[in-house]
Amino acid sequence: MSDRLTHVDAKGEARMVDVSAKDVTVRQATATGRVFVSPTVVGLLRGEGVPKGDALAVARIAGIQAAKKTPDLVPLCHPLAIHGVTVDLSVSDDAVEISATVRTADRTGVEMEALTCVAVAGLTVVDMVKAVDKGAVITDIRIEEKTGGKSGTYRRVEQGDS
Amino acid sequence: MSDRLTHVDAKGEARMVDVSAKDVTVRQATATGRVFVSPTVVGLLRGEGVPKGDALAVARIAGIQAAKKTPDLVPLCHPLAIHGVTVDLSVSDDAVEISATVRTADRTGVEMEALTCVAVAGLTVVDMVKAVDKGAVITDIRIEEKTGGKSGTYRRVEQGDS
Amino acid sequence: MSDRLTHVDAKGEARMVDVSAKDVTVRQATATGRVFVSPTVVGLLRGEGVPKGDALAVARIAGIQAAKKTPDLVPLCHPLAIHGVTVDLSVSDDAVEISATVRTADRTGVEMEALTCVAVAGLTVVDMVKAVDKGAVITDIRIEEKTGGKSGTYRRVEQGDS
Amino acid sequence: MSDRLTHVDAKGEARMVDVSAKDVTVRQATATGRVFVSPTVVGLLRGEGVPKGDALAVARIAGIQAAKKTPDLVPLCHPLAIHGVTVDLSVSDDAVEISATVRTADRTGVEMEALTCVAVAGLTVVDMVKAVDKGAVITDIRIEEKTGGKSGTYRRVEQGDS
Amino acid sequence: MSDRLTHVDAKGEARMVDVSAKDVTVRQATATGRVFVSPTVVGLLRGEGVPKGDALAVARIAGIQAAKKTPDLVPLCHPLAIHGVTVDLSVSDDAVEISATVRTADRTGVEMEALTCVAVAGLTVVDMVKAVDKGAVITDIRIEEKTGGKSGTYRRVEQGDS
Amino acid sequence: MSDRLTHVDAKGEARMVDVSAKDVTVRQATATGRVFVSPTVVGLLRGEGVPKGDALAVARIAGIQAAKKTPDLVPLCHPLAIHGVTVDLSVSDDAVEISATVRTADRTGVEMEALTCVAVAGLTVVDMVKAVDKGAVITDIRIEEKTGGKSGTYRRVEQGDS
Repeated sequence: MSDRLTHVDAKGEARMVDVSAKDVTVRQATATGRVFVSPTVVGLLRGEGVPKGDALAVARIAGIQAAKKTPDLVPLCHPLAIHGVTVDLSVSDDAVEISATVRTADRTGVEMEALTCVAVAGLTVVDMVKAVDKGAVITDIRIEEKTGGKSGTYRRVEQGDS
Repeated sequence: MSDRLTHVDAKGEARMVDVSAKDVTVRQATATGRVFVSPTVVGLLRGEGVPKGDALAVARIAGIQAAKKTPDLVPLCHPLAIHGVTVDLSVSDDAVEISATVRTADRTGVEMEALTCVAVAGLTVVDMVKAVDKGAVITDIRIEEKTGGKSGTYRRVEQGDS
Repeated sequence: MSDRLTHVDAKGEARMVDVSAKDVTVRQATATGRVFVSPTVVGLLRGEGVPKGDALAVARIAGIQAAKKTPDLVPLCHPLAIHGVTVDLSVSDDAVEISATVRTADRTGVEMEALTCVAVAGLTVVDMVKAVDKGAVITDIRIEEKTGGKSGTYRRVEQGDS
Repeated sequence: MSDRLTHVDAKGEARMVDVSAKDVTVRQATATGRVFVSPTVVGLLRGEGVPKGDALAVARIAGIQAAKKTPDLVPLCHPLAIHGVTVDLSVSDDAVEISATVRTADRTGVEMEALTCVAVAGLTVVDMVKAVDKGAVITDIRIEEKTGGKSGTYRRVEQGDS
Repeated sequence: MSDRLTHVDAKGEARMVDVSAKDVTVRQATATGRVFVSPTVVGLLRGEGVPKGDALAVARIAGIQAAKKTPDLVPLCHPLAIHGVTVDLSVSDDAVEISATVRTADRTGVEMEALTCVAVAGLTVVDMVKAVDKGAVITDIRIEEKTGGKSGTYRRVEQGDS
Repeated sequence: MSDRLTHVDAKGEARMVDVSAKDVTVRQATATGRVFVSPTVVGLLRGEGVPKGDALAVARIAGIQAAKKTPDLVPLCHPLAIHGVTVDLSVSDDAVEISATVRTADRTGVEMEALTCVAVAGLTVVDMVKAVDKGAVITDIRIEEKTGGKSGTYRRVEQGDS
C-alpha cells in the first residue's frame, strides 16, 4: 500500500494519475451500506398495508445509474467502461441493507463505482421515505471485497465495531 | 408527517410529486457525515510530512458540484435553483468530519441536496485516500437541521447512538 | 400559430428564443406513445410464468429522469423547473402504451418534456425486451393536450389515422 | 433469441448484465424513424420562401450527441465507446425521414445508441417546428439492421404494416 | 467592485456564495472571442470549393448548449434559468469571430454563461478544422457588456492591447 | 494533413467520423492558455494579505473534470477513455498561465481534451476573480505538442505573434 496520497503531486496539486500503461483485466468490487429507518418505514417498505411498489426499484436503478456517473462525481476518478452492476436492497428490522457489485474489464478498479452505487441508492431510499421519516441515516458505506488488478484481492477484516 | 410514501402512487408506481402550487420561499438544510480513516491518513490530511495540498479542496468542490447534480442522481427529486452551498471538512483523530449547508429560494426543500453534497464529498475523501487506506468507511450521513417551507423547522434530536 | 420556424433567425441561424419577458404560470402537457412488441414480450411483461419485476418500473423511472434532461437533449430547449411528472405504462395485446404528464410553474411550456419522457420510456422498453424481440417499434409519440401559457389550451384532434 | 427478459434477475430485479467476458469486435446498427409534419412545415424545411438554415442541422447534431448519452438515458445500457455516427434527415411530402448508423469496436451492440439517436433527432425536429405545427408525430422508430457481435447479423423483415 | 475573492471564505475555502436574497431581474451579457485559423481553413469555412455545410452550425449549437452547462463546468457558478441565447460566428480574413449574448430573468448575472458559450463554440471550431490546421488558437475571450442586476451596466473599455 | 473538413461529408452534413479501425495506442497532448487579470487579482492569487486558499485548486479541478466532459461539449468528438490529466496554473505578473497534459491509450488523440481542460480552467479563473476584475481575458489557448497515433508527433512552431 502507498504511504502517500497518490492523487496529489509533490506540490500537493490534484491530478488524475496516469493509468495508460496498466493492463486491461477483469476487476470486480463489492460495497455495502445501510440506511437506518423508522419502524413505520420498515412496514411500508415491506408492503404492509400499502403496495411498496417501485420504492426499492427506484433506489436500485438510481444506484446502477450512479455507478456509471462515478467519474463525473468524483473529480479524480478515471472514466471507465462498466460491464456489469447488481444492486441488492433488503429490508431488515431497522434498516434498508444495500449491497452492490460492479465488474469491468478495464485499466483501473471499480471500488469507487461500487461505493458510489451504494451511496446513491442510499440517498434515494432517504428521498423515498423522507415524508414519513426525516431522521433516516445512511451509514457504514464501505468496500467488502475487490478482486483483479495488480494489487489483487482485498477482503475487509471484520472489526466488530461498525 | 405523512403515513405513506409520497413518491409512489396508490398503485405503487413511482412519480415526481407535483409541487407547482408550492410557494417560492427561502429554505435551508444542513447535513453532516463522517469518513473513518486510518491514523496514517489522518497524518497525511493534516499535512504532516507532505503537503496535504488540494486533498480536502477536491472533496469540498466535489460536494458543491454534487449538490447541483442531485436531481440527476436521485430520480424523483425536483430540479431546483441552488442559491448557496458551504462545505466544511475537518480532520479529527480518526475521521474526516463533513458538514454541508445548502440554501435556496424555491418551491421544495434542499435536504436531499445537502445529503448528496455530504455523500459525494465523503466518496471523494475515500477516493483520495484509497491508495493508503482501503478500509475507509463513510458513515452517519444525516440531516441536522432544516428551515423554511410549509413544514417549517426540523432539528435532529440526538440519540446517543450514532 | 406562427408561419415560420422560430428557432432560426432571418439568416437561418439557430438560436434560443428569448423568453425572459414571459410570465411564470402553471403549464401542463400530456404526451403519449406506444411500443409494439411480440406476443412473447406481452406475456413476459404481464408477468406470465416469470416475475415481470422491475421491467416497467425501469421505463417509468427512465422517463421521469429524461423529462429533467430535456434541455440537455434538445439543443434549443430552455432549461425549466419541472414540478411534477407522472408516467403510466400499460401492456395491451400487442404493445406497451405510454402516457406522460409534466407540470411546471415557469416561463415556457412543457410539451417537449412530456414528449422526451415518452420517447425515453419507450427506448427503455425496447432495451428491456431486446433479447427476446429485436423487432420492437416505437411509434405515435405525440402531444395529446397542453394547458397554460399565453397560447392556452391545445387538444389533439383525432384523425383516425394513427 | 432469449425467452426471458435478461435485464431482470430471477427475482425480477433490474441489473446491468455482465458483459466483461464478451469480445471487443466491430459492431454496427442502423435505425430509422419518421416525424409526420404539416404541409406548411414541409415547405419551410425545404427552404421555400425562407432560409431553412440550421433547422435540420440542429436535429442531426442533437442525434449524434444523444447517441453518446445513451447509457445516461437508458438505465441498464452499458457505457460504450462510440466510434462513428451518421444521421441522415430528408424531407418527404408529409414527414422528415430519419436514418442513423452507429459503429463501435466494443463489447456490446449499438442498437440502443442508433435508436436513441433517431428518437432525439425526431424530438428536435418536433421542437424546431412546434410553433408552426403542434400536431407533429414521431413514429416508426426501429432497428433496420445490425451486424457484428456473437448474435451476428439481423435485418428487419418488412411486414407492410408500418 | 470587491477587493477580495468572493468565492473563497476567510479561511480560503471554496463556497457557492448565497444569492437567495437577490432579486429576480432581467440580466444580459455579451461575450466575444476569436479563433485564429489558416488561410486554407478560411477558404473552407467560406464554402470555397466545397460546401461549408454544417461547419459553423455545429459550433453555434455547441455554444448554445454549453451556456446551459455552465454550472456543471464552472464549479462555483449558480444554476440559472437561461432564457435566451444567440451566437454569431463570422469568418474574417484570418479568424472565426464569435459573439454570444445570453439573457435571463434570475438572481445572478450571465457573464459566465456568455463566456462559456464563446469558449465552447471556439473549441468546436478548432475540432472542426483540426484535420486541416493543427495550429488554430482561441483567443480574446472576454465580456463586452453586461446589463441588469444590482451592479448595473458594465461596458468593456477598449485598450488597444488585445 | 487533410485539405478538407473531415467532420462534414460531401453534402456538408455533420458526422462523427468512424475510428473503429484505428489502433489503440498511447497518445498525449499538451495545451496552454492564459488569463489576463488585473494587478489586484495577481496579488490576491499570490496570497498577498488574504489566504488564496482554494482559488487555483478550483480551476485545476474544473479543468480535470472538463477534460472528461469533452465529448459532451464538442459535438463531433469521440468518447474516449482518459487515462491521466495534469493541470498546472501559475501566476505571472499580469496573468494566470495554464498548461494541461492529457494522456490516453485509445483510438483517437486527446488534443481536444487538453484544449477543453485549459479553456474550462480559464473560465473558472475568470469566475473566481470576477467580483474583483470584470475585465479578465482568456487568450492563447492552443496545442503545444501532441504525440502518438498515426499522424505522430506535432510541435507548435513559435511565431512570435501571440
